[in-house]
Amino acid sequence: MALRHYTLDFNLSAPADCPSTVRGLHSIFQEQEMTETVHDTEGHGYLATFIGKNGRLVILRVHSQGLVTVDLQCCEGDNIAQVDNLLNALEKKLKSLLHGNIRGVKRLPALTRGAAVDRYWPTADGRLVEYDIDRVVYDEDSAYQNIKILHSQQFGNILILNGDVNLAESDLPYTQAIMGRGKENYTGKEVLILGGGDGGILAEAVKLNVYIDQMVIDGCRTHMRKACGSVLDNLKGDCYQVRMTVLSIALFLRRDGTFMVYSVSDSTWEFLQLILDLSIKVLRPTGKYFTQGNCANLTEALALYEEQLGRLSCPVDFSKEVVCVPSYMELWVFYTVWKK
Amino acid sequence: MALRHYTLDFNLSAPADCPSTVRGLHSIFQEQEMTETVHDTEGHGYLATFIGKNGRLVILRVHSQGLVTVDLQCCEGDNIAQVDNLLNALEKKLKSLLHGNIRGVKRLPALTRGAAVDRYWPTADGRLVEYDIDRVVYDEDSAYQNIKILHSQQFGNILILNGDVNLAESDLPYTQAIMGRGKENYTGKEVLILGGGDGGILAEAVKLNVYIDQMVIDGCRTHMRKACGSVLDNLKGDCYQVRMTVLSIALFLRRDGTFMVYSVSDSTWEFLQLILDLSIKVLRPTGKYFTQGNCANLTEALALYEEQLGRLSCPVDFSKEVVCVPSYMELWVFYTVWKK
Repeated sequence: MALRHYTLDFNLSAPADCPSTVRGLHSIFQEQEMTETVHDTEGHGYLATFIGKNGRLVILRVHSQGLVTVDLQCCEGDNIAQVDNLLNALEKKLKSLLHGNIRGVKRLPALTRGAAVDRYWPTADGRLVEYDIDRVVYDEDSAYQNIKILHSQQFGNILILNGDVNLAESDLPYTQAIMGRGKENYTGKEVLILGGGDGGILAEAVKLNVYIDQMVIDGCRTHMRKACGSVLDNLKGDCYQVRMTVLSIALFLRRDGTFMVYSVSDSTWEFLQLILDLSIKVLRPTGKYFTQGNCANLTEALALYEEQLGRLSCPVDFSKEVVCVPSYMELWVFYTVWKK
Repeated sequence: MALRHYTLDFNLSAPADCPSTVRGLHSIFQEQEMTETVHDTEGHGYLATFIGKNGRLVILRVHSQGLVTVDLQCCEGDNIAQVDNLLNALEKKLKSLLHGNIRGVKRLPALTRGAAVDRYWPTADGRLVEYDIDRVVYDEDSAYQNIKILHSQQFGNILILNGDVNLAESDLPYTQAIMGRGKENYTGKEVLILGGGDGGILAEAVKLNVYIDQMVIDGCRTHMRKACGSVLDNLKGDCYQVRMTVLSIALFLRRDGTFMVYSVSDSTWEFLQLILDLSIKVLRPTGKYFTQGNCANLTEALALYEEQLGRLSCPVDFSKEVVCVPSYMELWVFYTVWKK
């Protein structure tokens, strides 16, 4: 079962006249045959709960400092028109009761809680965003992580690893950014992809070694074909080879710019430093190391990463750019690193 | 004042053993010196409210069909670490009490309710999204609409008209899309911009007539300079002229693809048809009419718009493309229309 949770908030210029506000709403709750319980808040405003049929619950708070909040919870199968009417009636009545004292009214899209198809996948900087996800395509636990592929109406299938949005079929800008945005000529070059189990980069590149979670490959081969095409159908092509090597240190790059670590090290940054150092060591003198950094808002994590770049055993320079990846709901920073 | 509202939900394989679950949490609420009220739900599971110091409120529901929900509301000034600890304790305890029966646990980023800086601006397709807005730059009512310019850490200043996100300083892709994505040569061409008070298009184009809300111009000239540059500083340049004409029919194009109408017509689609028809009539035979359509998910509204294109007094053809506008949090459809 799932719960729909509506909120309706009034921001006031001055504290509301509590008794008249509460009294003014009574007829609405009576009409709905809802049972009221008034709570003692120890001086923190008025709080009442109203319980109605079908498990409907309304929580009314008149805060002492100029805020009135209404919560309405109902079961997903409840009559949506009836619930909307109740909320409309409360909004209309409150607007008239608080008239002249209202700074703002906010009625958010209802939260759906406990649904089989989870639409809420917060951004890396911790903001609440609701995706237009309408079905679960794939949901399995590998030995290393939870792998979800969820279908979004606008973004196509989205790969979500341990709750982090990794790549959607709409996200060619991600793949282009991490490959140097068309400024690199890959002809005859050797490419090592760390991570990349979604096949997006492999679909664009030529010769590479991939350390990868076989189950990510399996899921993406079937469900992310707009991103990976047919390159994951065979693990060896004319000019590429997919190597599944699960090292004692696991090489799964996460959206937050860290790696998932299962052994060896308990310091993620320390581990990232190790991988970076090893990567730059195997880089040819004229080679380039492309990597995603973090969301543009996590400036401290970005600064920390750049600090690490300054501490590698080979001295490097780097450039960065901010890219809009469609399914991310936040701008993302990509780095290009090369040996000095 | 503002309220922080936390949610913590457990999706279960089978209904929870209600008495033992509730009993198991008691010590936590007792430690917090919270006062419990158990409610009669008329057979719709267990519902208890707990009221603690500083106006803290917890709502615990054990639904009969395999869902446990926890709501925690506290004032914004409350001790965040303490509140986090309480929620952590509840999550940990519930995980142990429901062990073996848990399909999913969801703890969303807290909703902030009633804040002076509103971070929630739903998408055109009605999804809840939280922006990284940290301050109100401008907030005024003109004779026609509410005009907000809010600062986002990643997108820069965002223009919001009557609650619809219109354009952010990050949104060059919008301006590029509505100008034909670099495929049009504007040299020596006459350009008429309908809407466009943010100056983004004007900043890119050459000669034009704009019917516009003076207050949108004023706000954007000052606060959206990354989008409009200096073109709004003077209403007449060497090759452009800004005409403020508030017609008896008002020409403000909204994000949902409709116009705001203040007189003449009470049917938005009818009005849109009129504007479209007039626009195509004044279009040169080789001219192009660029317009934004709607969000990619509102397929019915898009179909309706395309139907309207088929009913103009001059027959037209059109093409469309889907564009990722950074601050929109959803893909957007743009149309190019020309005379057959």
